[in-house]
Amino acid sequence: MKPIFRRIAVIGKYREPVAGAAPASAQQIIEGIVQFIIRQGCEPTLEAETAASMGLDGYHTLDVDGIGGHCDLCLVVGGDGTMLGVGRRLAGYGTPLVGINQGRLGFITDIPLQGYEAALTAILHGEYEEDVRPLMQARVMRGDTCVFEALALNDVVVNRGSTSGMVELRVEVDGVFVSNQRADGLIVASPTGSTAYALSAGGPMLHPSIPGWVLVPIAPHMLSNRPIVLPDASEIAIEIAGGRDISANFDMQSLASLQHGDRVVVRRSAHRVCFLHPRGWSYFSTLRKKLRWNEGGS
Amino acid sequence: MKPIFRRIAVIGKYREPVAGAAPASAQQIIEGIVQFIIRQGCEPTLEAETAASMGLDGYHTLDVDGIGGHCDLCLVVGGDGTMLGVGRRLAGYGTPLVGINQGRLGFITDIPLQGYEAALTAILHGEYEEDVRPLMQARVMRGDTCVFEALALNDVVVNRGSTSGMVELRVEVDGVFVSNQRADGLIVASPTGSTAYALSAGGPMLHPSIPGWVLVPIAPHMLSNRPIVLPDASEIAIEIAGGRDISANFDMQSLASLQHGDRVVVRRSAHRVCFLHPRGWSYFSTLRKKLRWNEGGS
Amino acid sequence: MKPIFRRIAVIGKYREPVAGAAPASAQQIIEGIVQFIIRQGCEPTLEAETAASMGLDGYHTLDVDGIGGHCDLCLVVGGDGTMLGVGRRLAGYGTPLVGINQGRLGFITDIPLQGYEAALTAILHGEYEEDVRPLMQARVMRGDTCVFEALALNDVVVNRGSTSGMVELRVEVDGVFVSNQRADGLIVASPTGSTAYALSAGGPMLHPSIPGWVLVPIAPHMLSNRPIVLPDASEIAIEIAGGRDISANFDMQSLASLQHGDRVVVRRSAHRVCFLHPRGWSYFSTLRKKLRWNEGGS
Amino acid sequence: MKPIFRRIAVIGKYREPVAGAAPASAQQIIEGIVQFIIRQGCEPTLEAETAASMGLDGYHTLDVDGIGGHCDLCLVVGGDGTMLGVGRRLAGYGTPLVGINQGRLGFITDIPLQGYEAALTAILHGEYEEDVRPLMQARVMRGDTCVFEALALNDVVVNRGSTSGMVELRVEVDGVFVSNQRADGLIVASPTGSTAYALSAGGPMLHPSIPGWVLVPIAPHMLSNRPIVLPDASEIAIEIAGGRDISANFDMQSLASLQHGDRVVVRRSAHRVCFLHPRGWSYFSTLRKKLRWNEGGS
Repeated sequence: MKPIFRRIAVIGKYREPVAGAAPASAQQIIEGIVQFIIRQGCEPTLEAETAASMGLDGYHTLDVDGIGGHCDLCLVVGGDGTMLGVGRRLAGYGTPLVGINQGRLGFITDIPLQGYEAALTAILHGEYEEDVRPLMQARVMRGDTCVFEALALNDVVVNRGSTSGMVELRVEVDGVFVSNQRADGLIVASPTGSTAYALSAGGPMLHPSIPGWVLVPIAPHMLSNRPIVLPDASEIAIEIAGGRDISANFDMQSLASLQHGDRVVVRRSAHRVCFLHPRGWSYFSTLRKKLRWNEGGS
Repeated sequence: MKPIFRRIAVIGKYREPVAGAAPASAQQIIEGIVQFIIRQGCEPTLEAETAASMGLDGYHTLDVDGIGGHCDLCLVVGGDGTMLGVGRRLAGYGTPLVGINQGRLGFITDIPLQGYEAALTAILHGEYEEDVRPLMQARVMRGDTCVFEALALNDVVVNRGSTSGMVELRVEVDGVFVSNQRADGLIVASPTGSTAYALSAGGPMLHPSIPGWVLVPIAPHMLSNRPIVLPDASEIAIEIAGGRDISANFDMQSLASLQHGDRVVVRRSAHRVCFLHPRGWSYFSTLRKKLRWNEGGS
Repeated sequence: MKPIFRRIAVIGKYREPVAGAAPASAQQIIEGIVQFIIRQGCEPTLEAETAASMGLDGYHTLDVDGIGGHCDLCLVVGGDGTMLGVGRRLAGYGTPLVGINQGRLGFITDIPLQGYEAALTAILHGEYEEDVRPLMQARVMRGDTCVFEALALNDVVVNRGSTSGMVELRVEVDGVFVSNQRADGLIVASPTGSTAYALSAGGPMLHPSIPGWVLVPIAPHMLSNRPIVLPDASEIAIEIAGGRDISANFDMQSLASLQHGDRVVVRRSAHRVCFLHPRGWSYFSTLRKKLRWNEGGS
Repeated sequence: MKPIFRRIAVIGKYREPVAGAAPASAQQIIEGIVQFIIRQGCEPTLEAETAASMGLDGYHTLDVDGIGGHCDLCLVVGGDGTMLGVGRRLAGYGTPLVGINQGRLGFITDIPLQGYEAALTAILHGEYEEDVRPLMQARVMRGDTCVFEALALNDVVVNRGSTSGMVELRVEVDGVFVSNQRADGLIVASPTGSTAYALSAGGPMLHPSIPGWVLVPIAPHMLSNRPIVLPDASEIAIEIAGGRDISANFDMQSLASLQHGDRVVVRRSAHRVCFLHPRGWSYFSTLRKKLRWNEGGS
């Protein structure tokens, strides 16, 4: 039986060597994966910067957009952060992603480097669980001008600077006034982001199939300003009403120096990101592992 | 222009007189509303127990099921609790409800008795906002036998007795294991219930249009056992795995003495409840009022 | 050098065999400890019920009060629960306690059964850290009559029954009105109890040297009813102002069926409990272990 | 009977006019208070900057240190923030403070401007409640050099910048390792500060007589990193172990650009601040008012 995916891209975290590995071995890891792809009868494509940073010559290379247009599947070697970044960039192309992780497994990257071959072989032959995640499209409006635009898989965060007091934010949903919030900041998290920063700030987890975002205030002045889950079909607007040294962050992509009157507007993107997991994967089993529910409690 | 609703039912809280009112004036209030209905050119029906408990003779009366089959609209005079009870019983009939409240307004009952005529006149002529709420259908299974069944608009709660230690609950979603929880109890709340008990226990608010339930553990032993929002299309099963003196509560309808192995199973009901509010009503404005977000902060 | 403690008592959890051990081996464990005491040149005393339940004949035995009057040190074989129980009963005598634990170590019982000899030898020769814990004296007053009295090392809890609604509690400190609380219940926890139930309910940890109790509401109706730390020199009174099926629990010793008007009064006991730990013990290291702070995060 | 305080200072918030008042009336307010002091047979002293900013000539003036050395009592016209600032500066002199507030009353400033004469008359004649608050002395150590030093009545906060990720902080108490924390930041709050920022971040309230500080992590990565109350006799050291754009804030006095290895060290100051309140004042009544416990809840 032939693999159902033919053209397979490989992207490694390239700004720094694969965590915990000497540059040489990062190169060996990526090369090993490429050779594995060839042995499966598939056509490998190396992401260009990955190839350059690791000194891998002689392979077919493309940039990320090229991969989106050309490949059927993309293997990402790295942690959740790398995966989110690639996911955002490939979202428009619909290319599914598989995450291979060297260190502690993540919420999304769940194939351990040790013994990835068996897991990947199965996935290439169609034995996988699909895990589709919504994507946020966020803009910063200054008057009628859009001064920043970004996609986010995890969250959009508006927050104060390190030596400034609270921010004041006016929240509207589909043009209807919700609340004025005074806080360190406000998080709008997707189901994917609900287990990241939003959880630390006191938010709930959202199952990936929930079509909603959760608004989580960070250290709110009013004790009754609690997390609220809103439909992702609505448009959420956060207006800077007070405070200074305020920034907006989109999966950690930042826009500093927001001004009073600026509006951070969040909508659901038309695109979604599709992660593939080994057969038998379950969202809840990942939660149990990452949050250590399965251990004898304290 | 004629009212778009013709047959209008009136239900008053009949176990005890309308709060804060002498029995006589409760009678006068209900009678006033009935006369108002007649003046609008509509046909009033009094709920039979309301009529009996208030000594109102000479009107057309029906029991709640009769109202469901006969009437186009049901006016409920009382608080959120009364409204929820009537809502559950009329859900199968699709009769929309309007809440008139004497005391402090509720999350759902938002027409003040003082001056209800103007608000009702508008609603009778089609000037209203529809507010549709999902309903939970819950069963308690002992082996293959269903030993209890109930509908709930707010929440299903499994919890410990007053002198017993923690319960141990095994949670499954659509047959997939989620977690073992040791806690005082576990709340499964609808969007409607998310602003009630679940909020006190640390849960988030869910906008009524979110097709989800939130699971909120009460005083969980594991600090990482946090609220989680699950799709309402799934079946949530809570198995009693340990503890004693455990009960299940469905909008405060109780089943005591659960046994180990009993399973509380929650699904979305095929029925929903429809509340009508005055034009301009907004869910967020109700939140601001009830949670006092609009006041100068602490 | 001779041990600084001469008369050493041994108490094993006697209601049920030492957890995870066959009765025979529970007997062997206790007997092994007694023989170890003799080898150290000390005089062992077996707690009478321990001896009876484990079929240990031929040793000097005393009941717990006898041990308090006679012994210089008391070894407790069991978990934190057993240790708290013995601690309460010996508090009036000032006998220090050492905890030996077979399973997962506790907050207080921190000498593993495996290899206890080295740790105990050091302690017997004065190499230990003292860990003194305050004790609560709680009474339930019905009018001017005290209907119940108990000591508590962890907490005093007033809470609702499993099928009843919220309790209403009126809290006073030294006769000064603090608040009316509507909630599932209210915990008054000592520093020792602050890492137990109170932590699950959202309370802070109190270092054992803090002369205070923390009041932690359980699922409070008012979101601003937050935990508060009060001086342990004050008298805290909790009056039952509403609700039904209410009970008071003192380290899990329970008084059910509290009546409206009953007052649960908590004061600091004149006695304190003294636990001895191996040299190098630190409160913070126990926290790290029990709450898993030392592990790579989620 | 003569007042027990003779030399009375008056300080008004001078950076900006008294909130909500035209400059002219701010001047009139201060002048009215000074005239009131004279009528009581006491000697008024105007704080020099207050006098200058309000154009009040012809009165005895001193700077804040002069007031500390000369006056028996200091009246502060402003909000809690002004009061805290003056309190820190007068702490070394032991001068008691009384707060007069124009707007919404604060946690400390509780004499309304409207009708202050009766309240002040009583206080001047010894009819008052003393409210003594501990003070933190904080230093930032870079190696062996102290690069910043400040007093704080509310809190010492170490936190991240607006576009940076989590900080990593290593906490020690009296040289004993407590925990490594990854979070938005960490608050060390006094009892006074426990009802301010620390409360928003999830900390408990500490009664002013509790000799402790509470450590409250802000949005901690580990869900078991919970607030902990530590004895104020100990020295708390927070070392910057990771992150960037980190600052330390002492009652909002800021030091930006902390470096890795910097240590923020907090001790109890030898000085305390003494506030005087009208007879009958109670800490709990202030809590009820500020946190709205006394209102009909939802």
